[in-house]
Amino acid sequence: MSTKTSSSRRAFLAATVASAAHVWVPRPVKGYTAEELLAPVTPMATGISKWDLDTPALCVDLDKLEQNIARMQRSLAANKLASRPHAKTHKCAAIAKLQMAAGAIGICAAKLSEAEALAAQGLDRICMTTSNLPVGKIRRAMQLRKRTPQFIQAVDYEPNAHDLNAAAKEAGIVADVVIDVAVGTRSGIPAGDDALSLAKLVDKLPNLKLRGLLSYDGGAQHITGFAARKESALKNIAGNARTYEAMKRAGLSTEIFSGGGTGTYNIQHLVPGFTDVQVGSYLFMDMQYLAIGGEDGNPVYSDFASSLTVVATIVNNRFPGRLTTDAGAKAFTLNVPRPGVIGEPGMDYNPGSDEFGTITFTEASKAYKMGDRLEMIVPHCDPVVNEYDYLYGIRKDRVEVVWPITARGHSQ
Amino acid sequence: MSTKTSSSRRAFLAATVASAAHVWVPRPVKGYTAEELLAPVTPMATGISKWDLDTPALCVDLDKLEQNIARMQRSLAANKLASRPHAKTHKCAAIAKLQMAAGAIGICAAKLSEAEALAAQGLDRICMTTSNLPVGKIRRAMQLRKRTPQFIQAVDYEPNAHDLNAAAKEAGIVADVVIDVAVGTRSGIPAGDDALSLAKLVDKLPNLKLRGLLSYDGGAQHITGFAARKESALKNIAGNARTYEAMKRAGLSTEIFSGGGTGTYNIQHLVPGFTDVQVGSYLFMDMQYLAIGGEDGNPVYSDFASSLTVVATIVNNRFPGRLTTDAGAKAFTLNVPRPGVIGEPGMDYNPGSDEFGTITFTEASKAYKMGDRLEMIVPHCDPVVNEYDYLYGIRKDRVEVVWPITARGHSQ
Repeated sequence: MSTKTSSSRRAFLAATVASAAHVWVPRPVKGYTAEELLAPVTPMATGISKWDLDTPALCVDLDKLEQNIARMQRSLAANKLASRPHAKTHKCAAIAKLQMAAGAIGICAAKLSEAEALAAQGLDRICMTTSNLPVGKIRRAMQLRKRTPQFIQAVDYEPNAHDLNAAAKEAGIVADVVIDVAVGTRSGIPAGDDALSLAKLVDKLPNLKLRGLLSYDGGAQHITGFAARKESALKNIAGNARTYEAMKRAGLSTEIFSGGGTGTYNIQHLVPGFTDVQVGSYLFMDMQYLAIGGEDGNPVYSDFASSLTVVATIVNNRFPGRLTTDAGAKAFTLNVPRPGVIGEPGMDYNPGSDEFGTITFTEASKAYKMGDRLEMIVPHCDPVVNEYDYLYGIRKDRVEVVWPITARGHSQ
Repeated sequence: MSTKTSSSRRAFLAATVASAAHVWVPRPVKGYTAEELLAPVTPMATGISKWDLDTPALCVDLDKLEQNIARMQRSLAANKLASRPHAKTHKCAAIAKLQMAAGAIGICAAKLSEAEALAAQGLDRICMTTSNLPVGKIRRAMQLRKRTPQFIQAVDYEPNAHDLNAAAKEAGIVADVVIDVAVGTRSGIPAGDDALSLAKLVDKLPNLKLRGLLSYDGGAQHITGFAARKESALKNIAGNARTYEAMKRAGLSTEIFSGGGTGTYNIQHLVPGFTDVQVGSYLFMDMQYLAIGGEDGNPVYSDFASSLTVVATIVNNRFPGRLTTDAGAKAFTLNVPRPGVIGEPGMDYNPGSDEFGTITFTEASKAYKMGDRLEMIVPHCDPVVNEYDYLYGIRKDRVEVVWPITARGHSQ
């Protein structure tokens, strides 16, 4: 989702992110010179400095990532909720395994090809949060379920439940199913009678096993200001909460009542019966989430640390007040707010060209030379991760691990 | 580059693209039902209908693609220009080979990793249009030049020319080099004395061989209206043309004077000495290029046919006046104008969610069902192609070939 951030707010955010001491982000750019930069690195090279990576390079600070995972797990546990992190954010088997090791009860996948790729890397507790419509795809999902018995499939349409039942029968299994109940108008079956009737159908179909319901509120996650976000999230999910109660009264399984995300992780426990939160972006904390504001009233949402960055190289410094980098729309996407240049509050980074980033500034901390590096916080983590084959895991500025982005490009 | 298209112009364009008979695009959506859709397909499956592909699926109509290649080659030849198509658009070795077979004198690459990937597939005449700054990367470029003797490297910075010379010497070669002369302020060395002095330096350095100059005007390509585009393109390049003359007078090689693109392919021959055009998007004709208007005064730029589409599946039809598809920002990017729904002039397609597209409409040609397919013209071809691993080559609605997108994600 792209947030509608006004330009004044954007300027405020950029300045805050790049300069404020209480935010996790700022660290002055080391600014290696062209002469300091070494020989080419392969995606598999570890031990080198992040400033020597071939750019644009997608990096995650491992200390911050681990901190974020631990903090989310702690916070949810304190509210008696489990975490079922959404893998659409990172698409990375290694990170999913870290989340599982920290206590997640499973992961979510947005697309079947994403679930298949992660399952092939040993992830065995996957909930697919969207229904598969074509019959061929339903069959693939049931084959995946056969190989991966903990797989759970969302359904939001009666004929789809029948197809799913037939495919499960064909595969010789009884498949776990949750009802995807809409919050808003994007996906899922409307809350109320429609959803209840679908739950009853699933419960009756012999090759399906009803496990509960999903209720993801995409619209609430990026609402600016905690109070407004909380009000909206609770209002939007009220119909779903009634559906949950109705399912319970009807004797249907409500073992799973799942939804929410990084923007509402500390709100979802106010929904009676809610079991687990589908958090994703908390791992990385992009410019969009930094902008939504925290429960503490801080206009910068600082519950988690910004761990995901792109390192870029300056390829032109010849024109006054401008720098050109090698990281444009193919490196950052066009989501807003724009990339935040770490340590340079006076810079505005425009990734509007496919291959180049254009930085304009009235002041900079130093005179940047051709070949110098800069590091940026990404606008919106999910689609940025999807642009790269590898994610460099960085500890104290050195590459500790190189993770393949397992399901990159798996949008089917 | 994203164009600044006003919403009224956008609405006009959408309506025109989707309905006007004189545009190449329109073909009524066949609208297969969910029941008609078959078993899963692998990326290697050919012979099946495009309506049965796992979605979102990136498709190119082969008749239109071939038509576009032939027409561009003919038009440039009539103006006594060669084509040196830019592979940053398609990143696909198979398409580069079609372009070469049709008479292109070489291809361009924007990034070294892109050039390396294409060279590994047998493309041997590659011009890298941006300088490589880090010394390690320069060395890699010179190793590529050693393996691929027709490789040409751009340079726009004196220390970089010295580094290049040293790396060429180390590799035991004399490397072909062109001066990247700036048009605008994004990349390249300013036209005039700076550029001339760099050309003289390259000419003198023993392990470099000067071949001429590049002058790509990214800013002019998407200017709306042919007259304004022509005026701007000729004005912007005037300094470069003087630099070309000065290089010639100084006895330096001007064998290559290259630049331009799909927006100015029929303007560049007015620049004296110009040799070849770096066209890219003409292959595909996206919504951005359709919007710039043609030389014939047609507000829709129809010199070439829109061949590149994404096929998506409807995953929700429950809410009045809305449809949700499985193709969002990860399938289309956020460039504007938005995806154009073929055959449905009344639909507005918003790919703002990462995983979902949202269509709003007041009228539609039929009542769409869950599982039905729709086909969209893409907003901006280059970054959309970069989201996919495979491109389905379609002839008469059947998959004839599946092309790997060779350099997908190679943004380094």
